Amino acid sequence: MKEVAIGIDIGGTNTAIGIVDREGHCLFETSIPTDTHEQVTEYVADVSTKIKAITAANQGAFDIKGIGIGAPNANYHKGTIENAPNLRWKGIITFSELFKSHFPGIPVALTNDANAAAMGEMMYGGAKGMNDFIIITLGTGLGSGIVSNGELVYGHDGFAGEIGHTIAVKGGRLCGCGRRGCLETYASATGVKRSIFQIFCDSNKPSALRDIPFSNMTSSDVYKAAIAGDELALECFDYTGKILGEKLADSVAHTSPEAIFLFGGMAKSGDLIIKPTKKYMEESLLPIFKNKVKILPSALGDVNAAILGASALVWSELAK
Amino acid sequence: MKEVAIGIDIGGTNTAIGIVDREGHCLFETSIPTDTHEQVTEYVADVSTKIKAITAANQGAFDIKGIGIGAPNANYHKGTIENAPNLRWKGIITFSELFKSHFPGIPVALTNDANAAAMGEMMYGGAKGMNDFIIITLGTGLGSGIVSNGELVYGHDGFAGEIGHTIAVKGGRLCGCGRRGCLETYASATGVKRSIFQIFCDSNKPSALRDIPFSNMTSSDVYKAAIAGDELALECFDYTGKILGEKLADSVAHTSPEAIFLFGGMAKSGDLIIKPTKKYMEESLLPIFKNKVKILPSALGDVNAAILGASALVWSELAK
Repeated sequence: MKEVAIGIDIGGTNTAIGIVDREGHCLFETSIPTDTHEQVTEYVADVSTKIKAITAANQGAFDIKGIGIGAPNANYHKGTIENAPNLRWKGIITFSELFKSHFPGIPVALTNDANAAAMGEMMYGGAKGMNDFIIITLGTGLGSGIVSNGELVYGHDGFAGEIGHTIAVKGGRLCGCGRRGCLETYASATGVKRSIFQIFCDSNKPSALRDIPFSNMTSSDVYKAAIAGDELALECFDYTGKILGEKLADSVAHTSPEAIFLFGGMAKSGDLIIKPTKKYMEESLLPIFKNKVKILPSALGDVNAAILGASALVWSELAK
Repeated sequence: MKEVAIGIDIGGTNTAIGIVDREGHCLFETSIPTDTHEQVTEYVADVSTKIKAITAANQGAFDIKGIGIGAPNANYHKGTIENAPNLRWKGIITFSELFKSHFPGIPVALTNDANAAAMGEMMYGGAKGMNDFIIITLGTGLGSGIVSNGELVYGHDGFAGEIGHTIAVKGGRLCGCGRRGCLETYASATGVKRSIFQIFCDSNKPSALRDIPFSNMTSSDVYKAAIAGDELALECFDYTGKILGEKLADSVAHTSPEAIFLFGGMAKSGDLIIKPTKKYMEESLLPIFKNKVKILPSALGDVNAAILGASALVWSELAK
C-alpha cells in the first residue's frame, strides 16, 4: 500500500481533485464543477464519491494519510470557508467537518488557495529549503501566502496573507471588498483588463485591442497582443509590474523574504510580468534590501500545481 | 547564585545596561554615553567594565546566563551592526564577537531595538501568551518588530520588520534612507515636528507653537500644546494617527496580528496617538479584519523597557 494524500483545489467554477504521493507525483486526477450544487452538503458528497470511486478502483493500493483542501476564504484554524465572494454557499461553512463525516478517522486540513500554493512550492517547487518567502497568486484576484521561519503565517485569526488587499493607489479603483485602490484591482487578470482601458483613454496610439469591447476583453488578449508587439499592451504589462513591484517593496520591508514567487494564470506571462515587477521593486526597496530578493515564476508544474499544494498540507500537518 | 541576563540597549546617544532576572526584575541598572567613543572596541571595553564592576561588587550573587543586546541596524543572524545612521561607527561591526572576547563562554545575542522591544513585550509585557502581534516603536524614527507563530520574524537576511520604511505617501517627505514618503517621516517624533509645520502652512488658525522656530520644535512641544487644547497640535496628532493607522491596515493584511503595541517616547502620548491610529486603521481595514486588532500601549515599565527587551533575548535563545 502506498501512502497518499488527497489534494482538493476548490475554485469558483471548478474543483480539482487528485491523489498525490509523498514525492509529489499526482497518481490520479479528476474534477467536478464547483458552482452547480445549491447545497454545500451535496457538493461535498459528490467530491467524496469521486474520491471513493478512484480508491475503490485501485483497491488496497492507497493508504490515505489525509485530505488537504485549498479554497478561497478558507480559515486554517477553524477549518471553515467564510463568506467567499466567488462561491455560491454563503456564511460560515464548516468544511473540514463536512469532509470528515465522509472519511471517518482521516485527518482533514483546509487552508486558503494561496497558502496551499505556498505549501506546494515549499515542498515540491522552487522554495525547497527556503525558510522565508512569499507566493503571489495572480488569477482573477491576487492571493498571497507568506512563509516566515519555515512556517506559513496564518495570523491570529487564520486570515493572514491578504497582500492583494493592501492599498496600492489611495482612492484608486473600486475593489470587490468594497474599498478603493487595493493591489488586486491592478495586479491580477481583471486588473490588467482595467489597465488596458485606462491606457486607451490616456494614449492616442493605435492598438488592435481597441476593437474589443470591455465585456469581452481578457488578460489573455492583452498578453497575446503584447507578444505580437502591441505597444499599448506592452505598456499595460509594464504598468502592472510597476504597481505590483512598488507594493512588493512594502512586503519585503515586512518579512524580508529570500524570494517572491509568482503563481497562477497571469504568472505564465513570464518575463512580460516578471521583468517590470523586479525592476520597479528594486527601485522602490529600502537600500538594505536591494539586490537580495528574487522574483521567480512558480516551479510547480502547470496542471497539478493547486492539487499539489493542497496535498502538501497533509504531509505538513502529519510532520507537526 | 541567581540566574540573570545582561540586557544592553544601545541608543544613538546613550547606552542603558541592566542585570535582569528571569522574572523581568531589573536588579541593577547603569548607563554610559554611546557617542563619545571614537573606536567601537573602546566602547565595548567600557560597557564590559561597567558590567564587571557590578558583578564584582555582588561577588558570587549572579550566574550570568547570557548577554542580550538591542541596537539600531542590528542583524540577529550575523551578530553585527551594519551601517547604522545614528551610530558613529560605520561599516559592518561584529558586535557579538567583540562582547564575547570580554565574556568568554557566555552566549551573546544581538537584535535590532524594535525586535528586542517585541521580545520584552512577549515575555514580560502585554503580549504574554500572544503568538501573533506587532510592536511599533515611535522614537526619532519608527521601528517595528513582527511576531508570527510565536516567533520573531527576522527574514532571510535578518533585517525584517522595517514597517517604518514602507511608503505612506508616494513622492512624500524625504526620508533619511534616501527615498520619499516613508511611514517614519510622518509617524515618529521627527514626523510630528514636520507635520506641525505643514499644518501651520495649511491653516490660518492661531497656535502658541507658531512662535517656536523649526530648529527648536520637538514632538514634546506639540504634545504639551495638544494637552492644553491647542487646535493645530490636536490636528497634528490626528494627522499622525491617520497616516499610521492607514498603513497599519496594510500590515494587518500581511500578518493578521492579535494586537499592535505602540512603544517608546511618542507612544506615551497615550490616547492622543492611540485613538486616531485605531480609528483610521479600522476605517482602512479589509472587512474580514475589522474589530479584531487591538491597538495597545506597551505594558512594559517606562525606564527599563529597552533593557528588559534586550535581556529577554537571552532567555529566548536559551529556550531554543
